[in-house]
Amino acid sequence: MNIEEFVRDGHLTYMPSVAVDCAIFGFHDNTLKILLLKWKNLKGWSLPGGYMKRTEEADEAAGRLLRERTGLEKIFLQQYHTFTGIDRTKIPGMDMQEFGHSIGVEIGPEHWLRQRVVCVGYYALVEYSRVRNPQADTFTEVCEWCNIDELPHLLFDHKEMIEMAVKTLRLQLNFQPVGLNLLPHKFTMSELQKLYETLLGYPLDRGNFRKKMLGTGILRKTGERPTGKAHKAPHLYSFNKQEYVRSLKSGMRFS
Amino acid sequence: MNIEEFVRDGHLTYMPSVAVDCAIFGFHDNTLKILLLKWKNLKGWSLPGGYMKRTEEADEAAGRLLRERTGLEKIFLQQYHTFTGIDRTKIPGMDMQEFGHSIGVEIGPEHWLRQRVVCVGYYALVEYSRVRNPQADTFTEVCEWCNIDELPHLLFDHKEMIEMAVKTLRLQLNFQPVGLNLLPHKFTMSELQKLYETLLGYPLDRGNFRKKMLGTGILRKTGERPTGKAHKAPHLYSFNKQEYVRSLKSGMRFS
Repeated sequence: MNIEEFVRDGHLTYMPSVAVDCAIFGFHDNTLKILLLKWKNLKGWSLPGGYMKRTEEADEAAGRLLRERTGLEKIFLQQYHTFTGIDRTKIPGMDMQEFGHSIGVEIGPEHWLRQRVVCVGYYALVEYSRVRNPQADTFTEVCEWCNIDELPHLLFDHKEMIEMAVKTLRLQLNFQPVGLNLLPHKFTMSELQKLYETLLGYPLDRGNFRKKMLGTGILRKTGERPTGKAHKAPHLYSFNKQEYVRSLKSGMRFS
Repeated sequence: MNIEEFVRDGHLTYMPSVAVDCAIFGFHDNTLKILLLKWKNLKGWSLPGGYMKRTEEADEAAGRLLRERTGLEKIFLQQYHTFTGIDRTKIPGMDMQEFGHSIGVEIGPEHWLRQRVVCVGYYALVEYSRVRNPQADTFTEVCEWCNIDELPHLLFDHKEMIEMAVKTLRLQLNFQPVGLNLLPHKFTMSELQKLYETLLGYPLDRGNFRKKMLGTGILRKTGERPTGKAHKAPHLYSFNKQEYVRSLKSGMRFS
Protein backbone atom coordinates (compact mmCIF):
# COMPACT_ATOMS: atom_id res chain seq x y z
CA MET A 1 0.00 0.00 0.00
CA ASN A 2 1.59 3.33 -1.00
CA ILE A 3 1.03 6.59 0.89
CA GLU A 4 -1.89 7.78 -1.27
CA GLU A 5 -3.75 4.49 -0.94
CA PHE A 6 -3.07 4.38 2.77
CA VAL A 7 -4.39 7.88 3.39
CA ARG A 8 -7.45 7.44 1.16
CA ASP A 9 -8.53 3.87 1.95
CA GLY A 10 -6.52 2.80 4.98
CA HIS A 11 -9.58 2.79 7.23
CA LEU A 12 -10.95 -0.16 5.24
CA THR A 13 -7.96 -2.25 6.27
CA TYR A 14 -7.07 -0.73 9.64
CA MET A 15 -8.90 0.26 12.83
CA PRO A 16 -8.72 4.07 12.84
CA SER A 17 -8.36 4.41 16.62
CA VAL A 18 -6.06 1.55 17.56
CA ALA A 19 -2.33 1.21 16.90
CA VAL A 20 0.54 -0.92 18.13
CA ASP A 21 4.15 0.16 18.78
CA CYS A 22 7.12 -2.06 19.51
CA ALA A 23 10.14 -1.32 21.68
CA ILE A 24 12.67 -3.79 20.23
CA PHE A 25 15.76 -4.17 22.40
CA GLY A 26 19.13 -5.65 21.53
CA PHE A 27 22.36 -6.02 23.51
CA HIS A 28 25.74 -5.32 21.95
CA ASP A 29 29.13 -4.34 23.37
CA ASN A 30 27.61 -4.34 26.86
CA THR A 31 25.13 -1.68 25.73
CA LEU A 32 21.36 -1.81 25.57
CA LYS A 33 20.12 -0.76 22.11
CA ILE A 34 16.69 -0.03 20.70
CA LEU A 35 15.46 -0.09 17.10
CA LEU A 36 14.18 3.30 15.87
CA LEU A 37 12.83 4.79 12.64
CA LYS A 38 13.71 8.21 11.24
CA TRP A 39 10.71 9.89 9.61
CA LYS A 40 10.84 11.31 6.08
CA ASN A 41 9.00 14.58 6.49
CA LEU A 42 9.07 15.07 10.23
CA LYS A 43 12.13 16.02 12.19
CA GLY A 44 12.34 13.07 14.51
CA TRP A 45 12.37 9.38 15.24
CA SER A 46 9.83 6.86 16.47
CA LEU A 47 9.42 3.26 17.52
CA PRO A 48 8.38 0.80 14.83
CA GLY A 49 4.58 0.64 14.85
CA GLY A 50 1.38 1.12 12.97
CA TYR A 51 -2.38 0.77 12.94
CA MET A 52 -3.92 -2.58 13.89
CA LYS A 53 -5.63 -4.36 11.01
CA ARG A 54 -9.34 -5.07 11.31
CA THR A 55 -8.53 -8.76 10.87
CA GLU A 56 -5.83 -9.06 13.52
CA GLU A 57 -5.42 -8.91 17.29
CA ALA A 58 -2.78 -6.74 18.90
CA ASP A 59 -0.30 -9.64 19.34
CA GLU A 60 -0.54 -10.40 15.62
CA ALA A 61 -0.11 -6.74 14.67
CA ALA A 62 3.00 -6.50 16.86
CA GLY A 63 4.41 -9.71 15.35
CA ARG A 64 3.76 -8.42 11.83
CA LEU A 65 5.46 -5.10 12.51
CA LEU A 66 8.48 -6.79 14.10
CA ARG A 67 8.75 -9.13 11.10
CA GLU A 68 8.43 -6.27 8.60
CA ARG A 69 11.20 -4.25 10.25
CA THR A 70 13.63 -7.01 11.24
CA GLY A 71 12.74 -10.13 9.25
CA LEU A 72 12.58 -12.04 12.54
CA GLU A 73 9.75 -14.48 13.26
CA LYS A 74 8.46 -16.15 16.42
CA ILE A 75 9.98 -13.61 18.79
CA PHE A 76 8.46 -13.33 22.26
CA LEU A 77 6.64 -9.98 22.33
CA GLN A 78 5.36 -8.74 25.65
CA GLN A 79 2.47 -6.29 25.85
CA TYR A 80 3.41 -3.83 28.58
CA HIS A 81 1.18 -0.73 28.52
CA THR A 82 -1.49 0.98 26.45
CA PHE A 83 -1.00 4.69 25.83
CA THR A 84 -4.17 6.77 25.65
CA GLY A 85 -3.10 10.42 25.93
CA ILE A 86 -5.72 12.54 24.18
CA ASP A 87 -3.30 14.45 21.96
CA ARG A 88 -0.58 11.83 21.87
CA THR A 89 -0.35 11.66 18.06
CA LYS A 90 -0.84 15.35 17.31
CA ILE A 91 2.26 16.70 15.63
CA PRO A 92 2.98 20.38 16.39
CA GLY A 93 3.20 22.41 13.18
CA MET A 94 1.86 19.58 11.00
CA ASP A 95 -0.98 20.71 8.73
CA MET A 96 -2.88 17.54 7.80
CA GLN A 97 -4.91 19.31 5.10
CA GLU A 98 -1.75 20.60 3.45
CA PHE A 99 -0.18 17.15 3.67
CA GLY A 100 -3.30 15.74 1.98
CA HIS A 101 -3.05 18.25 -0.87
CA SER A 102 0.62 17.36 -1.40
CA ILE A 103 -0.38 13.77 -2.19
CA GLY A 104 -3.71 14.59 -3.87
CA VAL A 105 -6.04 13.32 -1.14
CA GLU A 106 -8.57 15.45 0.72
CA ILE A 107 -8.05 15.21 4.51
CA GLY A 108 -11.13 16.85 6.02
CA PRO A 109 -11.89 17.24 9.73
CA GLU A 110 -13.65 13.83 9.88
CA HIS A 111 -10.89 11.99 8.01
CA TRP A 112 -9.87 8.68 9.60
CA LEU A 113 -6.28 9.83 10.15
CA ARG A 114 -7.54 12.68 12.31
CA GLN A 115 -9.17 10.40 14.83
CA ARG A 116 -7.66 9.93 18.24
CA VAL A 117 -5.46 6.83 18.43
CA VAL A 118 -4.76 4.66 21.45
CA CYS A 119 -1.63 2.57 21.18
CA VAL A 120 -0.88 -0.83 22.65
CA GLY A 121 2.83 -0.96 23.54
CA TYR A 122 4.91 -4.14 23.17
CA TYR A 123 8.52 -4.88 23.86
CA ALA A 124 10.77 -7.61 22.56
CA LEU A 125 14.32 -8.72 23.20
CA VAL A 126 16.09 -9.82 20.05
CA GLU A 127 19.51 -11.12 19.12
CA TYR A 128 21.33 -8.03 17.89
CA SER A 129 23.50 -9.98 15.45
CA ARG A 130 20.44 -11.46 13.70
CA VAL A 131 19.07 -8.03 12.70
CA ARG A 132 21.51 -7.20 9.93
CA ASN A 133 19.40 -5.06 7.66
CA PRO A 134 16.42 -3.43 9.42
CA GLN A 135 13.83 -2.00 7.03
CA ALA A 136 12.13 1.41 7.18
CA ASP A 137 8.41 1.66 6.38
CA THR A 138 6.37 3.91 4.04
CA PHE A 139 6.70 6.99 6.25
CA THR A 140 10.32 6.61 7.27
CA GLU A 141 13.71 6.57 5.61
CA VAL A 142 16.03 4.95 8.15
CA CYS A 143 15.61 2.04 10.57
CA GLU A 144 18.57 1.52 12.90
CA TRP A 145 19.79 0.60 16.37
CA CYS A 146 20.28 3.47 18.81
CA ASN A 147 21.95 3.40 22.22
CA ILE A 148 19.35 3.64 24.94
CA ASP A 149 21.51 6.28 26.68
CA GLU A 150 21.84 8.45 23.56
CA LEU A 151 18.37 8.65 22.06
CA PRO A 152 17.65 11.08 19.18
CA HIS A 153 14.63 13.42 19.23
CA LEU A 154 11.51 11.28 19.54
CA LEU A 155 8.10 12.08 18.02
CA PHE A 156 4.66 11.63 19.57
CA ASP A 157 4.76 10.12 23.10
CA HIS A 158 7.51 7.68 22.15
CA LYS A 159 9.98 8.96 24.73
CA GLU A 160 7.50 8.02 27.44
CA MET A 161 6.88 4.67 25.71
CA ILE A 162 10.57 3.81 25.72
CA GLU A 163 11.01 4.88 29.34
CA MET A 164 8.12 2.70 30.40
CA ALA A 165 9.38 -0.25 28.36
CA VAL A 166 12.79 -0.02 30.05
CA LYS A 167 11.14 0.26 33.44
CA THR A 168 8.98 -2.81 32.72
CA LEU A 169 12.01 -4.75 31.54
CA ARG A 170 13.76 -3.91 34.82
CA LEU A 171 10.79 -4.99 36.89
CA GLN A 172 10.54 -8.15 34.84
CA LEU A 173 14.03 -9.15 35.97
CA ASN A 174 12.51 -9.78 39.40
CA PHE A 175 10.11 -12.45 38.33
CA GLN A 176 10.78 -13.58 34.77
CA PRO A 177 13.94 -14.83 33.09
CA VAL A 178 15.84 -12.57 30.68
CA GLY A 179 18.77 -13.45 28.49
CA LEU A 180 17.55 -15.86 25.82
CA ASN A 181 17.90 -13.98 22.50
CA LEU A 182 20.19 -11.44 24.12
CA LEU A 183 23.19 -13.64 24.91
CA PRO A 184 25.06 -16.12 22.71
CA HIS A 185 23.97 -19.78 22.99
CA LYS A 186 26.67 -20.48 25.60
CA PHE A 187 27.76 -17.86 28.09
CA THR A 188 29.60 -17.41 31.37
CA MET A 189 27.98 -16.38 34.63
CA SER A 190 29.87 -13.06 34.33
CA GLU A 191 28.34 -12.37 30.92
CA LEU A 192 24.85 -13.04 32.30
CA GLN A 193 25.57 -10.79 35.29
CA LYS A 194 26.83 -8.02 32.98
CA LEU A 195 23.56 -8.21 31.02
CA TYR A 196 21.53 -7.89 34.21
CA GLU A 197 23.68 -5.00 35.43
CA THR A 198 23.26 -3.18 32.11
CA LEU A 199 19.51 -3.63 32.16
CA LEU A 200 19.22 -2.61 35.81
CA GLY A 201 21.72 0.21 35.65
CA TYR A 202 23.55 -0.75 38.87
CA PRO A 203 26.12 -3.36 39.97
CA LEU A 204 25.11 -6.64 41.63
CA ASP A 205 26.91 -8.79 44.18
CA ARG A 206 28.63 -11.66 42.36
CA GLY A 207 28.00 -14.38 44.93
CA ASN A 208 24.33 -13.52 45.44
CA PHE A 209 23.68 -13.26 41.73
CA ARG A 210 25.24 -16.66 41.05
CA LYS A 211 23.29 -18.29 43.88
CA LYS A 212 19.99 -16.74 42.82
CA MET A 213 20.43 -17.60 39.16
CA LEU A 214 21.39 -21.23 39.83
CA GLY A 215 18.37 -21.45 42.16
CA THR A 216 15.90 -20.54 39.43
CA GLY A 217 16.54 -23.74 37.47
CA ILE A 218 16.70 -21.89 34.13
CA LEU A 219 20.46 -22.47 33.68
CA ARG A 220 22.16 -25.61 32.46
CA LYS A 221 25.88 -26.18 33.06
CA THR A 222 27.33 -27.27 29.73
CA GLY A 223 30.40 -28.84 31.31
CA GLU A 224 32.51 -26.76 28.92
CA ARG A 225 34.79 -23.83 29.48
CA PRO A 226 35.74 -21.16 26.92
CA THR A 227 38.32 -22.61 24.54
CA GLY A 228 41.86 -21.34 24.69
CA LYS A 229 41.51 -20.46 28.37
CA ALA A 230 43.48 -21.93 31.24
CA HIS A 231 42.04 -24.67 33.46
CA LYS A 232 40.65 -22.03 35.82
CA ALA A 233 38.49 -20.53 33.05
CA PRO A 234 34.84 -20.05 34.05
CA HIS A 235 32.11 -22.57 33.26
CA LEU A 236 29.90 -22.07 30.25
CA TYR A 237 26.14 -22.16 30.77
CA SER A 238 23.18 -22.35 28.44
CA PHE A 239 19.48 -21.89 29.15
CA ASN A 240 17.27 -24.83 30.06
CA LYS A 241 14.70 -23.79 27.49
CA GLN A 242 11.82 -25.83 28.88
CA GLU A 243 12.22 -24.30 32.34
CA TYR A 244 12.90 -20.87 30.82
CA VAL A 245 9.67 -20.88 28.83
CA ARG A 246 7.73 -22.19 31.83
CA SER A 247 9.09 -19.35 33.99
CA LEU A 248 8.32 -16.83 31.28
CA LYS A 249 4.69 -17.91 31.21
CA SER A 250 3.95 -18.46 34.86
CA GLY A 251 6.47 -16.31 36.65
CA MET A 252 9.09 -17.51 39.07
CA ARG A 253 7.81 -18.57 42.43
CA PHE A 254 7.78 -16.16 45.36
CA SER A 255 10.22 -17.43 47.94
CA MET B 1 -27.78 9.26 29.77
CA ASN B 2 -30.56 6.68 29.39
CA ILE B 3 -30.33 3.64 27.11
CA GLU B 4 -32.01 5.28 24.10
CA GLU B 5 -29.75 8.33 24.26
CA PHE B 6 -26.69 6.13 24.73
CA VAL B 7 -27.50 3.94 21.73
CA ARG B 8 -28.42 6.88 19.48
CA ASP B 9 -25.82 9.49 20.39
CA GLY B 10 -23.24 7.70 22.55
CA HIS B 11 -20.58 7.97 19.84
CA LEU B 12 -20.56 11.75 20.31
CA THR B 13 -19.44 11.28 23.92
CA TYR B 14 -17.49 8.02 23.73
CA MET B 15 -14.81 6.51 21.50
CA PRO B 16 -16.62 3.71 19.65
CA SER B 17 -13.66 1.31 19.61
CA VAL B 18 -12.11 1.77 23.04
CA ALA B 19 -13.41 0.60 26.41
CA VAL B 20 -12.08 0.13 29.93
CA ASP B 21 -12.92 -2.67 32.39
CA CYS B 22 -11.99 -2.85 36.06
CA ALA B 23 -11.25 -5.95 38.15
CA ILE B 24 -11.93 -4.61 41.64
CA PHE B 25 -10.67 -6.92 44.38
CA GLY B 26 -11.55 -6.99 48.07
CA PHE B 27 -10.46 -9.27 50.91
CA HIS B 28 -12.96 -10.52 53.49
CA ASP B 29 -13.03 -13.57 55.80
CA ASN B 30 -9.70 -14.69 54.34
CA THR B 31 -11.30 -14.84 50.88
CA LEU B 32 -10.46 -12.87 47.76
CA LYS B 33 -13.57 -11.23 46.30
CA ILE B 34 -14.28 -9.38 43.06
CA LEU B 35 -17.00 -6.88 42.20
CA LEU B 36 -19.32 -8.04 39.39
CA LEU B 37 -22.43 -6.78 37.60
CA LYS B 38 -25.43 -8.90 36.61
CA TRP B 39 -26.86 -7.83 33.24
CA LYS B 40 -30.55 -7.04 32.78
CA ASN B 41 -31.30 -8.73 29.46
CA LEU B 42 -28.37 -11.05 29.09
CA LYS B 43 -27.90 -14.18 31.14
CA GLY B 44 -24.59 -13.42 32.73
CA TRP B 45 -22.25 -11.21 34.69
CA SER B 46 -19.41 -8.87 33.79
CA LEU B 47 -16.74 -6.67 35.28
CA PRO B 48 -17.60 -3.01 35.81
CA GLY B 49 -16.59 -1.14 32.68
CA GLY B 50 -17.63 1.00 29.77
CA TYR B 51 -16.56 3.03 26.77
CA MET B 52 -13.82 5.61 27.18
CA LYS B 53 -15.00 9.20 26.79
CA ARG B 54 -13.51 11.29 24.00
CA THR B 55 -12.35 13.77 26.65
CA GLU B 56 -10.63 11.34 28.99
CA GLU B 57 -7.59 9.05 29.10
CA ALA B 58 -7.89 5.40 30.11
CA ASP B 59 -6.78 6.08 33.72
CA GLU B 60 -9.52 8.68 34.09
CA ALA B 61 -12.14 6.38 32.58
CA ALA B 62 -11.17 3.60 35.00
CA GLY B 63 -11.29 6.02 37.95
CA ARG B 64 -14.71 7.28 36.88
CA LEU B 65 -16.10 3.75 36.55
CA LEU B 66 -14.71 2.71 39.93
CA ARG B 67 -16.23 5.82 41.51
CA GLU B 68 -19.60 5.27 39.86
CA ARG B 69 -19.83 1.66 41.07
CA THR B 70 -18.30 1.97 44.55
CA GLY B 71 -18.32 5.63 45.53
CA LEU B 72 -14.59 5.34 46.25
CA GLU B 73 -12.14 8.01 45.10
CA LYS B 74 -8.36 8.13 44.76
CA ILE B 75 -7.88 4.37 44.61
CA PHE B 76 -4.70 3.06 43.02
CA LEU B 77 -5.78 1.51 39.70
CA GLN B 78 -3.23 -0.53 37.80
CA GLN B 79 -3.49 -1.02 34.06
CA TYR B 80 -2.55 -4.66 33.43
CA HIS B 81 -3.51 -5.76 29.91
CA THR B 82 -5.40 -4.65 26.83
CA PHE B 83 -7.78 -7.18 25.32
CA THR B 84 -8.12 -7.10 21.55
CA GLY B 85 -9.87 -10.33 20.52
CA ILE B 86 -11.68 -9.69 17.25
CA ASP B 87 -15.07 -11.03 18.39
CA ARG B 88 -14.59 -10.37 22.09
CA THR B 89 -17.80 -8.35 22.54
CA LYS B 90 -20.04 -10.35 20.21
CA ILE B 91 -22.86 -11.89 22.20
CA PRO B 92 -24.09 -15.24 20.85
CA GLY B 93 -27.83 -15.10 20.12
CA MET B 94 -28.02 -11.32 20.56
CA ASP B 95 -29.78 -9.59 17.65
CA MET B 96 -28.63 -5.96 17.74
CA GLN B 97 -31.23 -4.83 15.20
CA GLU B 98 -34.03 -6.36 17.27
CA PHE B 99 -32.60 -4.77 20.41
CA GLY B 100 -32.62 -1.41 18.60
CA HIS B 101 -36.26 -1.81 17.60
CA SER B 102 -37.20 -2.62 21.22
CA ILE B 103 -35.95 0.81 22.29
CA GLY B 104 -36.96 2.67 19.12
CA VAL B 105 -33.46 3.23 17.67
CA GLU B 106 -32.26 1.92 14.31
CA ILE B 107 -29.04 -0.14 14.73
CA GLY B 108 -27.78 -0.67 11.17
CA PRO B 109 -24.62 -2.53 10.16
CA GLU B 110 -22.48 0.63 10.45
CA HIS B 111 -23.88 1.63 13.85
CA TRP B 112 -21.23 2.66 16.38
CA LEU B 113 -22.18 -0.13 18.83
CA ARG B 114 -21.37 -2.71 16.14
CA GLN B 115 -17.77 -1.64 15.85
CA ARG B 116 -15.03 -3.81 17.23
CA VAL B 117 -13.97 -2.72 20.72
CA VAL B 118 -10.56 -3.10 22.33
CA CYS B 119 -10.58 -2.94 26.10
CA VAL B 120 -7.94 -1.64 28.49
CA GLY B 121 -8.04 -3.76 31.67
CA TYR B 122 -7.37 -2.28 35.11
CA TYR B 123 -7.31 -3.81 38.53
CA ALA B 124 -7.70 -2.22 41.94
CA LEU B 125 -7.49 -3.44 45.51
CA VAL B 126 -10.10 -1.82 47.72
CA GLU B 127 -11.10 -2.04 51.35
CA TYR B 128 -14.04 -4.42 51.32
CA SER B 129 -15.73 -2.77 54.29
CA ARG B 130 -15.79 0.63 52.56
CA VAL B 131 -17.90 -0.62 49.64
CA ARG B 132 -21.25 -0.90 51.39
CA ASN B 133 -23.66 -0.23 48.59
CA PRO B 134 -22.21 -0.94 45.12
CA GLN B 135 -24.26 0.53 42.27
CA ALA B 136 -25.31 -1.18 39.03
CA ASP B 137 -25.21 0.81 35.76
CA THR B 138 -27.73 1.38 32.93
CA PHE B 139 -27.38 -2.12 31.49
CA THR B 140 -27.23 -4.08 34.74
CA GLU B 141 -29.45 -4.77 37.73
CA VAL B 142 -27.10 -6.03 40.43
CA CYS B 143 -23.58 -5.03 41.50
CA GLU B 144 -22.08 -7.27 44.17
CA TRP B 145 -19.01 -9.02 45.57
CA CYS B 146 -18.41 -12.57 44.36
CA ASN B 147 -15.88 -15.09 45.66
CA ILE B 148 -13.04 -15.49 43.20
CA ASP B 149 -13.34 -19.27 43.57
CA GLU B 150 -17.09 -19.33 42.85
CA LEU B 151 -17.59 -17.06 39.85
CA PRO B 152 -20.99 -16.93 38.10
CA HIS B 153 -21.31 -17.23 34.30
CA LEU B 154 -19.28 -14.41 32.76
CA LEU B 155 -20.09 -12.59 29.50
CA PHE B 156 -17.72 -11.48 26.73
CA ASP B 157 -14.05 -12.31 27.47
CA HIS B 158 -14.40 -11.36 31.13
CA LYS B 159 -13.41 -14.78 32.47
CA GLU B 160 -10.06 -14.38 30.72
CA MET B 161 -9.83 -10.80 32.02
CA ILE B 162 -10.31 -11.92 35.62
CA GLU B 163 -7.85 -14.79 35.28
CA MET B 164 -5.23 -12.45 33.92
CA ALA B 165 -5.89 -9.86 36.63
CA VAL B 166 -5.40 -12.51 39.34
CA LYS B 167 -2.25 -13.74 37.64
CA THR B 168 -0.91 -10.17 37.44
CA LEU B 169 -1.74 -9.58 41.09
CA ARG B 170 0.23 -12.72 42.00
CA LEU B 171 3.22 -11.65 39.94
CA GLN B 172 3.02 -8.22 41.49
CA LEU B 173 3.61 -9.73 44.92
CA ASN B 174 7.17 -10.41 43.80
CA PHE B 175 8.11 -6.83 43.22
CA GLN B 176 5.47 -4.47 44.57
CA PRO B 177 3.86 -4.20 47.99
CA VAL B 178 0.30 -5.40 48.53
CA GLY B 179 -1.87 -4.97 51.57
CA LEU B 180 -2.70 -1.30 51.93
CA ASN B 181 -6.47 -1.02 51.36
CA LEU B 182 -6.86 -4.77 51.92
CA LEU B 183 -5.88 -5.02 55.58
CA PRO B 184 -7.02 -2.98 58.58
CA HIS B 185 -4.80 -0.04 59.58
CA LYS B 186 -2.93 -2.21 62.14
CA PHE B 187 -2.33 -5.89 61.55
CA THR B 188 -0.20 -8.80 62.71
CA MET B 189 2.46 -10.51 60.63
CA SER B 190 0.17 -13.59 60.51
CA GLU B 191 -2.65 -11.54 59.00
CA LEU B 192 -0.32 -10.15 56.34
CA GLN B 193 0.96 -13.66 55.60
CA LYS B 194 -2.60 -14.99 55.34
CA LEU B 195 -3.37 -12.28 52.75
CA TYR B 196 -0.32 -13.25 50.70
CA GLU B 197 -1.19 -16.94 50.93
CA THR B 198 -4.75 -16.27 49.79
CA LEU B 199 -3.58 -14.21 46.84
CA LEU B 200 -0.91 -16.73 45.87
CA GLY B 201 -2.98 -19.83 46.51
CA TYR B 202 -0.26 -21.70 48.40
CA PRO B 203 1.28 -21.65 51.90
CA LEU B 204 4.47 -19.75 52.72
CA ASP B 205 7.21 -20.42 55.25
CA ARG B 206 6.60 -18.24 58.32
CA GLY B 207 10.22 -17.40 59.11
CA ASN B 208 11.16 -16.54 55.52
CA PHE B 209 8.05 -14.45 55.00
CA ARG B 210 8.68 -12.43 58.15
CA LYS B 211 12.33 -11.87 57.25
CA LYS B 212 11.53 -10.86 53.68
CA MET B 213 8.73 -8.50 54.69
CA LEU B 214 10.76 -6.76 57.37
CA GLY B 215 13.57 -6.43 54.82
CA THR B 216 11.44 -4.45 52.38
CA GLY B 217 11.12 -1.46 54.70
CA ILE B 218 7.41 -1.06 54.01
CA LEU B 219 6.37 -2.18 57.53
CA ARG B 220 6.41 -0.09 60.68
CA LYS B 221 6.28 -1.77 64.10
CA THR B 222 3.61 0.09 66.07
CA GLY B 223 4.93 -1.11 69.45
CA GLU B 224 1.40 -2.25 70.24
CA ARG B 225 -0.07 -5.71 70.61
CA PRO B 226 -3.71 -6.65 70.09
CA THR B 227 -5.68 -5.56 73.20
CA GLY B 228 -7.02 -8.20 75.54
CA LYS B 229 -4.25 -10.59 74.61
CA ALA B 230 -1.58 -11.99 76.92
CA HIS B 231 1.94 -10.56 77.03
CA LYS B 232 3.04 -13.04 74.34
CA ALA B 233 0.50 -11.67 71.85
CA PRO B 234 2.03 -10.84 68.44
CA HIS B 235 3.21 -7.36 67.49
CA LEU B 236 0.97 -5.07 65.50
CA TYR B 237 2.37 -3.51 62.32
CA SER B 238 1.20 -0.77 60.02
CA PHE B 239 2.50 0.27 56.61
CA ASN B 240 5.20 2.89 56.26
CA LYS B 241 3.17 4.76 53.66
CA GLN B 242 6.03 6.79 52.24
CA GLU B 243 8.13 3.69 51.59
CA TYR B 244 5.05 1.77 50.42
CA VAL B 245 4.19 4.35 47.78
CA ARG B 246 7.81 4.60 46.71
CA SER B 247 7.96 0.80 46.23
CA LEU B 248 4.67 0.84 44.35
CA LYS B 249 6.03 3.37 41.89
CA SER B 250 9.55 2.15 41.36
CA GLY B 251 9.43 -1.53 42.26
CA MET B 252 11.40 -3.18 45.02
CA ARG B 253 15.05 -3.59 44.32
CA PHE B 254 16.43 -6.80 42.85
CA SER B 255 18.60 -8.48 45.48
